[in-house]
Amino acid sequence: MEKYLLKILGSGAALPSNLSNQSAQVLSMCGRNYMIDCGENAQAMLRKYNVNHSKLNHIFISHLHGDHCFGLLGLISTLDMLGRMCDITVFSHPGLEEMMKPMMAHFFKGLHFNVHFEEFAPGKHELIYDCNGLEVYTVPLKHTIHSSGFVFKEKEKQRHIIRSKVDFYQVPVRMLQHIKNGGDFVTEEGKVIPNSELTASADPIRSFAYISDTAKSERIVEYISGVDLLFHESTFLDINKARAKQTLHSTARQAAEIAKLADAKKLVLGHFSARYKSREEFLSEAREIFENCSLGNDGAEFEF
Amino acid sequence: MEKYLLKILGSGAALPSNLSNQSAQVLSMCGRNYMIDCGENAQAMLRKYNVNHSKLNHIFISHLHGDHCFGLLGLISTLDMLGRMCDITVFSHPGLEEMMKPMMAHFFKGLHFNVHFEEFAPGKHELIYDCNGLEVYTVPLKHTIHSSGFVFKEKEKQRHIIRSKVDFYQVPVRMLQHIKNGGDFVTEEGKVIPNSELTASADPIRSFAYISDTAKSERIVEYISGVDLLFHESTFLDINKARAKQTLHSTARQAAEIAKLADAKKLVLGHFSARYKSREEFLSEAREIFENCSLGNDGAEFEF
Repeated sequence: MEKYLLKILGSGAALPSNLSNQSAQVLSMCGRNYMIDCGENAQAMLRKYNVNHSKLNHIFISHLHGDHCFGLLGLISTLDMLGRMCDITVFSHPGLEEMMKPMMAHFFKGLHFNVHFEEFAPGKHELIYDCNGLEVYTVPLKHTIHSSGFVFKEKEKQRHIIRSKVDFYQVPVRMLQHIKNGGDFVTEEGKVIPNSELTASADPIRSFAYISDTAKSERIVEYISGVDLLFHESTFLDINKARAKQTLHSTARQAAEIAKLADAKKLVLGHFSARYKSREEFLSEAREIFENCSLGNDGAEFEF
Repeated sequence: MEKYLLKILGSGAALPSNLSNQSAQVLSMCGRNYMIDCGENAQAMLRKYNVNHSKLNHIFISHLHGDHCFGLLGLISTLDMLGRMCDITVFSHPGLEEMMKPMMAHFFKGLHFNVHFEEFAPGKHELIYDCNGLEVYTVPLKHTIHSSGFVFKEKEKQRHIIRSKVDFYQVPVRMLQHIKNGGDFVTEEGKVIPNSELTASADPIRSFAYISDTAKSERIVEYISGVDLLFHESTFLDINKARAKQTLHSTARQAAEIAKLADAKKLVLGHFSARYKSREEFLSEAREIFENCSLGNDGAEFEF
């Protein structure tokens, strides 16, 4: 089974610190690399953390705050210098293409690939990408501007054929796809062999949810229910929860509460405010609520 | 005498490397900090290298290639978060304001200071800044697009009054400014005391020249003649001088030749291509021509 990997390129909130870059992650899933948010310096982090950029064709921007997208210009520019020929698609809330247009027209004259912008609707939960066995859904968040999370989810998989049973009932090859899809088999004598006898369960569907800048929102739980890996912003510690509420961000405790409600398998914290010198308290605070939790510091990797 | 300081924030050419950030420097001169070029991540380097941003009100962009200005959006954004109230002036070739306008309109709603753009004429040597005892002149360079160097130069200074002489001739206080400016003194008896008897020479005028992306250009020598500190790009080693010629960049040897022709006191090399693993060869190559030479690596500082 292909190992899926989340790599954190930047774990800091808007104000930069010496500890971290701004938000950017790369998800390796279903044979491709997907960039999620692209804060300043993301291109340098791609290099530092050895991300294969030839497999990177899609970038998902959670919301139009600078610390989540100011790295786009530099990234596109560098990919071009590295000899890229494949197009890039940038998913974002409406407006990004329009506002980047004049800079792109100047700086990307003679670019060797196209940059497509796909705008998704604010405040909705909808499918925005479906390709290569992967689906990506938006998750409406609660922030000072329209902000979206993303759920990356394998598509429904086929059931596994039980070879010995298929041979026993002499199922013709042309019927195998029908059976993988869950269909029963009818013998020449008219006997119905139920699918459950011919197949074993499909592999479990793996999924990852990225919950970007947001106040604690229980509304999202239904969308991220049961994910294998949940990234949830935790800009603040609970001691500053008034500040979190005011700025529409979450605390580590709140992130853990959401992870618990959603029955996620693992929680990764990130988007840490520069005001905290150490991050260990984020971890201990969250673990009081949700044990399987890690810090998503710059360079951290999580398999699922 | 105030010490002037050049601090290198980014020493790399366009393609990022693990060795360096893209072009950005801060010049501390005449009581203020001046940023010269603002490649991506310059704001993080300001923090890393402890630059006092409250003294930073002016940014000079040498040319409109991304590796020299993609850091502007992030820098402005961060300065605002840090509570800045003072305006910032960005000097550049024409077009930057226009192309940044839509992004600024979105990302900088409610900015607590103004960003003024001052456009200077391409291909000219002219005074673009005159304030605080400092003048800044453009230097026309030879690159794939309009590119300018900058000369930062103290203004003409006043001569030093020789106290004992002034007392001896009973020069009235109201005449002192006239004498500092080089004027003679006429006693009540009508005797002319030449200025040279009343004053000592003014302090020498200190200057710094920043020579950004350019092919070797002897035309610039007259503009940078005698500078205390010369930064000159040296993207390539001489072994790749054909490539330098083709891309309108300089080699370390060529930078040294210009430093020698200009009779600069010290040369700093930078804008190193990522193709070279080590930078020592830049230094040895340049020193064959011009001995007082250093590598302008990220974080390096040069007093003058």
